[in-house]
Amino acid sequence: MRFTSQTTSNGVSERLFNLDDIPGVLWSPADAAGSRPLVLLGHGGGQHKQAAGLVARAHRYVTACGFAVAAIDVPGHGGRPRTEQDERFTAGIGERLAAGEPLGPHIARHNAALAARAIPEWQATLDALQKLDCVGAGGPVGFWGVSLGSAIGVPFTAAESRITAAVFGLAGHETLAEAAARITVPVEFLLQWDDEMVPRDSGLALFGAFASPEKTLHANPGRHAGVPAFELESSERFFTRHLLEGGASAEFAG
Amino acid sequence: MRFTSQTTSNGVSERLFNLDDIPGVLWSPADAAGSRPLVLLGHGGGQHKQAAGLVARAHRYVTACGFAVAAIDVPGHGGRPRTEQDERFTAGIGERLAAGEPLGPHIARHNAALAARAIPEWQATLDALQKLDCVGAGGPVGFWGVSLGSAIGVPFTAAESRITAAVFGLAGHETLAEAAARITVPVEFLLQWDDEMVPRDSGLALFGAFASPEKTLHANPGRHAGVPAFELESSERFFTRHLLEGGASAEFAG
Repeated sequence: MRFTSQTTSNGVSERLFNLDDIPGVLWSPADAAGSRPLVLLGHGGGQHKQAAGLVARAHRYVTACGFAVAAIDVPGHGGRPRTEQDERFTAGIGERLAAGEPLGPHIARHNAALAARAIPEWQATLDALQKLDCVGAGGPVGFWGVSLGSAIGVPFTAAESRITAAVFGLAGHETLAEAAARITVPVEFLLQWDDEMVPRDSGLALFGAFASPEKTLHANPGRHAGVPAFELESSERFFTRHLLEGGASAEFAG
Repeated sequence: MRFTSQTTSNGVSERLFNLDDIPGVLWSPADAAGSRPLVLLGHGGGQHKQAAGLVARAHRYVTACGFAVAAIDVPGHGGRPRTEQDERFTAGIGERLAAGEPLGPHIARHNAALAARAIPEWQATLDALQKLDCVGAGGPVGFWGVSLGSAIGVPFTAAESRITAAVFGLAGHETLAEAAARITVPVEFLLQWDDEMVPRDSGLALFGAFASPEKTLHANPGRHAGVPAFELESSERFFTRHLLEGGASAEFAG
């Protein structure tokens, strides 16, 4: 892991790195000393590791919770070369739009192929991050990612026992239910009630598929990209509960 | 409104009152001066205005948010006389359990009848509470109630323009969808994924029926009475956002 730049703003240190050919970014408190929980952010399709929403989220998790936060570019995204497969995917979007065909299955197939490439990259990144003083080995690790972030994050979390809590959403069960059924850590799952990309029943079925004893579905009106801002705070409370406070969750009668 | 007792513990003043023949309780900060947001709590079936869950919730809203909080006994509950109708309902539960018949429609019919009696009582209570110095007229009013609390609270909120935000849940669409379609204030809706009293599809349909531009569904695994403790904190954030902060809710890209 080779750091290539460091800047600091509003108490948040932002360091760009390369791990082999994977470009990444690590946010941490500017005065970070000693180990701390780590949250990995998976960006959406067509986005990259420093998309505005990810940067705002990272700053919030660092300043409000003291976490370290990291993101990497998914293959074919951000600064990474696009393969023939990526180009065929993009061309296929236009063809299906022109033919009036649904995009969902086409995107899900491509995302599954991206996940196969991205999972070992996330694992190598996690190995390297846990060797840093400001993260440390053996601490709690969260994953946040919706849409493409879940298409990669769900099988990644199923395969990676170091992840102890995850926020997913905006994804359906077709290609992900099998991996979801192997996940037992706490999950917060976002669903857009009027999602034009993911049919409501498919999202509900994916929520149903997680084996996690603690899982919570947050559904809101609106389209795929319209997740309300208050869900950022909700995810912060979720990660605080599970990465800092040990996840106590007694029941009470309604 | 006649106050009959006052006690204070942990900074929370608890005053019992009677309004005509309705027994109620008002919680407020012990040092309350001036007007403040009010949250009305609707108890569940077979419970009463000082059920343990309600008292804990009231203390939390008072100490964490500075709200005034009130509850009244639903007809046939707590200290209130039971009518022949109430006795027939209870007998009907036993008969249906013995015959292996579903309880849902029986309970929903009875709850609808209770709502017709309870709504004018809630309105009279709200009138009286808003004349108190520690509440004041014209301020924000929240309603929280699940199960029977929603069977009453949904039509109450549809009929009562003073309520500006509400938490509902553990209820189905059959008897409530029409009232829900007249509600436009922000709603947080709780659904238990394995609810033995309310079929999942019926709860989802009720969530879908609210006309509110801002509504958020929180679904969790478990049975009717198993709402997780973290939803108490979530409702506190919801009421804080809408009763104290004016409900700002910008969207952001996931």
